[in-house]
Amino acid sequence: MHKTAARADNIFILLWEVNFLFIKRTDLALEARELFEESGASLPGGIRSREYRQGMADVTCIDVCSEEGARALGKACGTYVTVSLPELWMRDSDSVFTTAQTLARELRPLLPENGAVLVVGLGNRFITPDAVGPLCTEHVIVTRHLLEQMPDEFGGLRPVCALTAGVLGLTGIETAEIVRGVVQRVHPSAVIAVDALASRSASRLCRAFQMSDTGVTPGSGVFNARATLDSKSLGVPVVAIGVPTVVDALTLTADTLELAGQALPENPRLRERENLMVTPKDIDALVQKSAKVIGYAVNLALQGDLTAAEMEQFLS
Amino acid sequence: MHKTAARADNIFILLWEVNFLFIKRTDLALEARELFEESGASLPGGIRSREYRQGMADVTCIDVCSEEGARALGKACGTYVTVSLPELWMRDSDSVFTTAQTLARELRPLLPENGAVLVVGLGNRFITPDAVGPLCTEHVIVTRHLLEQMPDEFGGLRPVCALTAGVLGLTGIETAEIVRGVVQRVHPSAVIAVDALASRSASRLCRAFQMSDTGVTPGSGVFNARATLDSKSLGVPVVAIGVPTVVDALTLTADTLELAGQALPENPRLRERENLMVTPKDIDALVQKSAKVIGYAVNLALQGDLTAAEMEQFLS
Amino acid sequence: MHKTAARADNIFILLWEVNFLFIKRTDLALEARELFEESGASLPGGIRSREYRQGMADVTCIDVCSEEGARALGKACGTYVTVSLPELWMRDSDSVFTTAQTLARELRPLLPENGAVLVVGLGNRFITPDAVGPLCTEHVIVTRHLLEQMPDEFGGLRPVCALTAGVLGLTGIETAEIVRGVVQRVHPSAVIAVDALASRSASRLCRAFQMSDTGVTPGSGVFNARATLDSKSLGVPVVAIGVPTVVDALTLTADTLELAGQALPENPRLRERENLMVTPKDIDALVQKSAKVIGYAVNLALQGDLTAAEMEQFLS
Amino acid sequence: MHKTAARADNIFILLWEVNFLFIKRTDLALEARELFEESGASLPGGIRSREYRQGMADVTCIDVCSEEGARALGKACGTYVTVSLPELWMRDSDSVFTTAQTLARELRPLLPENGAVLVVGLGNRFITPDAVGPLCTEHVIVTRHLLEQMPDEFGGLRPVCALTAGVLGLTGIETAEIVRGVVQRVHPSAVIAVDALASRSASRLCRAFQMSDTGVTPGSGVFNARATLDSKSLGVPVVAIGVPTVVDALTLTADTLELAGQALPENPRLRERENLMVTPKDIDALVQKSAKVIGYAVNLALQGDLTAAEMEQFLS
Repeated sequence: MHKTAARADNIFILLWEVNFLFIKRTDLALEARELFEESGASLPGGIRSREYRQGMADVTCIDVCSEEGARALGKACGTYVTVSLPELWMRDSDSVFTTAQTLARELRPLLPENGAVLVVGLGNRFITPDAVGPLCTEHVIVTRHLLEQMPDEFGGLRPVCALTAGVLGLTGIETAEIVRGVVQRVHPSAVIAVDALASRSASRLCRAFQMSDTGVTPGSGVFNARATLDSKSLGVPVVAIGVPTVVDALTLTADTLELAGQALPENPRLRERENLMVTPKDIDALVQKSAKVIGYAVNLALQGDLTAAEMEQFLS
Repeated sequence: MHKTAARADNIFILLWEVNFLFIKRTDLALEARELFEESGASLPGGIRSREYRQGMADVTCIDVCSEEGARALGKACGTYVTVSLPELWMRDSDSVFTTAQTLARELRPLLPENGAVLVVGLGNRFITPDAVGPLCTEHVIVTRHLLEQMPDEFGGLRPVCALTAGVLGLTGIETAEIVRGVVQRVHPSAVIAVDALASRSASRLCRAFQMSDTGVTPGSGVFNARATLDSKSLGVPVVAIGVPTVVDALTLTADTLELAGQALPENPRLRERENLMVTPKDIDALVQKSAKVIGYAVNLALQGDLTAAEMEQFLS
Repeated sequence: MHKTAARADNIFILLWEVNFLFIKRTDLALEARELFEESGASLPGGIRSREYRQGMADVTCIDVCSEEGARALGKACGTYVTVSLPELWMRDSDSVFTTAQTLARELRPLLPENGAVLVVGLGNRFITPDAVGPLCTEHVIVTRHLLEQMPDEFGGLRPVCALTAGVLGLTGIETAEIVRGVVQRVHPSAVIAVDALASRSASRLCRAFQMSDTGVTPGSGVFNARATLDSKSLGVPVVAIGVPTVVDALTLTADTLELAGQALPENPRLRERENLMVTPKDIDALVQKSAKVIGYAVNLALQGDLTAAEMEQFLS
Repeated sequence: MHKTAARADNIFILLWEVNFLFIKRTDLALEARELFEESGASLPGGIRSREYRQGMADVTCIDVCSEEGARALGKACGTYVTVSLPELWMRDSDSVFTTAQTLARELRPLLPENGAVLVVGLGNRFITPDAVGPLCTEHVIVTRHLLEQMPDEFGGLRPVCALTAGVLGLTGIETAEIVRGVVQRVHPSAVIAVDALASRSASRLCRAFQMSDTGVTPGSGVFNARATLDSKSLGVPVVAIGVPTVVDALTLTADTLELAGQALPENPRLRERENLMVTPKDIDALVQKSAKVIGYAVNLALQGDLTAAEMEQFLS
């Protein structure tokens, strides 16, 4: 379907975007580019990327620098860094700390060097694959109150605070409103927003960590401009960290058909797939592990090179 | 693929069964029959079925009475009753109790009229869609100890006890071994085994409750004969109650291709789908609700017509 | 010890207050008055109270109308309504809804008649007896976003939003700061703050629900003026609802000695009691039930007379 | 009260025992001896003890070798080893692993050198301070099924299986019955039973780990001979491991009065304390940590000297 679109003029490009968004949903810039390329169209100017290896991880860094590029990928202008881990990382216990070190190395350059940081856990604590954000804040070393109460004892630390903002359906308040209210009182130098993402590919679930300086739209796919958390809406830089935990069932279906060289048929039985998600069978454990590794990475990026034991001590 | 098989002789039937098991996995007798019929083959003798409506529910009752029929459906000889609920049931709060009444009416004839009953919750409490069994036992009215300690006060009740047996990976013991050990000490007149199932169709997830008098194989698909819980292995009748909470990602993929008139292609990218499951987006809440409705149905089937308030009182 | 103080002049009154706070800690105005009376001193002017029965509950209404009265009880000026339930309520399942109706009747007059309401769950979700507030918000019917999105369909409802603000140790931000930030964006007509309390008496645990129009100090006993949630700090009326879930071990100790006619001895072994709390053995279940009854009472006070079934439907 | 008893003849000794059990409840042999000594009576023969230091821990080893000694302490004949940790251990993150090593050194001599071991987690998962046993089994490395399926790969390991048996109120079956049923099928060389205990002293909560070769009575204090898990009832050695998580409120009260030189007064207000327990304010976290340290100690005692990383790897 989007193959047709790729050959098309402006009107079809619009159509293509619509189809693209619904049929192959992804929150990863890496995959948005991949899907565009698979469509056979050539990427517009203003999209630069480079890849390198860091330890066991493959790092892909995509800079979206033009409005045309942003439109093509459906991604705001800015830098998207994806750290892709080997499958092994999920089973190897040493790797939480070393993986966090890898993420921290990519995260640090996206953050301001000084000043307080507010970490916001986005998503719904009561829906397993959406709980990465709320669970992550439990692993963040919170220091702001300690520095206010005992500045001498904790002098070496950077002030960090954390918020689990809930979701619109449970609070009745746009997450962005809550965060904005808190930012206006706390005046951090930056916000780090942690969220679960959707991927188009099962092989990236709980393995591809994306960090970007572009902010984030909680519950993305809904496309409600008011809800975006970015430097424009919050008045401070917003760094987003996320990891895909689900593939949309319709995306998987579209992928399947493509492998078979078919278009998505019009069939009422596909309707019932709209409320379905695809996850690894051990998603409960993987979400816990992913949340921990992001929390640790935030700590290492903000507080310098803590040892594993120092980290545990702060968090126990 | 299985369409070819369906036209085949004995050897191919075997092949077909193998493909069937891996490509379209289901634990529902209703769907096993459906898949067989879709294959174009005619059902062997010894499979009888009837359908009727009970309140909002469609009830399908399949009797497998011959070895040939059992082989065709991949299901042991016995009676399989499936109560299919409208989608509405998941959102309507009144319906937990009324749905339990519907299930209880079908469950009662499968159980012996008198004697103690042991309810076993199968599955892994720590994996959301597998937790129906363990969660269900929390809603079962347990009376055996009360009747032993205060026979006069609780004289009207039937003795019921409950066990959450864990899973092999967490206990190191076959579930069937644990249950057998407990049965040999408690001597119930029947065992009710509650488990989460797999369906081939998204539209049956958390909506099609299957009850059968044939026992159950925990973690089915593994096909380890020692592990089956049935009257042969336990020495007492075993009634199984289950509800599908997942579709295998490969099953969904096969279904997709069939809709498009294609066979499943040989593609390495399909490999990565083997560890994936497809669930509704609100699976956390639906598993809780399904576990509760089964627990209530067990109570109504065993203790007679309790009111909703009496039920709550016993369980609070 | 406080008996001595009660006979004393101003300086001793101060001492008495200090001892009172540390030795017999309570968050209930009812008990503060009781302790004062037990001390043998006569209550200052400006404290009025009346008692009446409502269904199974005893209701005590204390108005603190003078600064002198406020100082004597260690409670801000305002109205404190305590609904005391019979022990039976904890075991009787019908009673969640009927108890909520009783609470709602007392709560309604404390609230403004119109306008949006923000419900804030105070306390630490990860500490069982402190989790009443966070758990309560799960039972509040949240409507604000529905009214904004579909004003016609939900026209009969009052706009309600809810926030679980976390605790200073986990967020690094004073709870009052977070709430203030959200209030400034949401502009509710009132805030309802739900919190777990401390009682001086075991017999009131999970049975005496206090509602007041005076606001609340999260983690009270710390007495940090910045942290208070009241109409002064938030700019809108703050109604507090709480229920005691713990008795301080030192309070229990002091009570014991008083029964024996003794003062609290100076003994190093008493030091180790400072980090102890006294709770009912079934505190896990009682906290769940108390949170539910408060949430239901809030719904009934704000949305008018919903039936039990309507309530469940909104919350499922 | 028991002071009187201590001066008394046989009849009074009986009385004393009754009072002792109700007024100062403890599951620790260490404290039973302490209480006896505090009573002023001299210990009967057949109770030997020695103390030594192991790292940061104080180890007390009490051998009860005579029926008279057993009656005096209210403890079965056998060896009771208590490892008392400094308060620091609860806050220091390194210490889970090193503490487990300390416990393992004392645990190993109580266990048979070879053969399969069944670890049983006793207690109620849904009551925070009673959940040590069920939580502990999550940290036990379970190998029995791996050794059966892949004997060559896991040849170096000792077969271990684990069971969470529930509690009588939730299962309707005596825990001892369930364990006996499983033992008769699994035939372990020993059972390790993990349980939460009651202490008479707040300073030992979550800090004094008791190991004994005498078995255990789940829900002790009830004194129901059928319910005991020991070598007599199970046919194999039973090693009990426990840690106190609560002090009975009446025990604390009695202790208070003793400090003040008073007897326990007859007062109806003391009745209401019978359903109360005293716990540390951070009991939720301490129970998690205690369960983990016991699980790790079991692993080290059974599987030899695993490193911390190897342990995590088995458990992830």
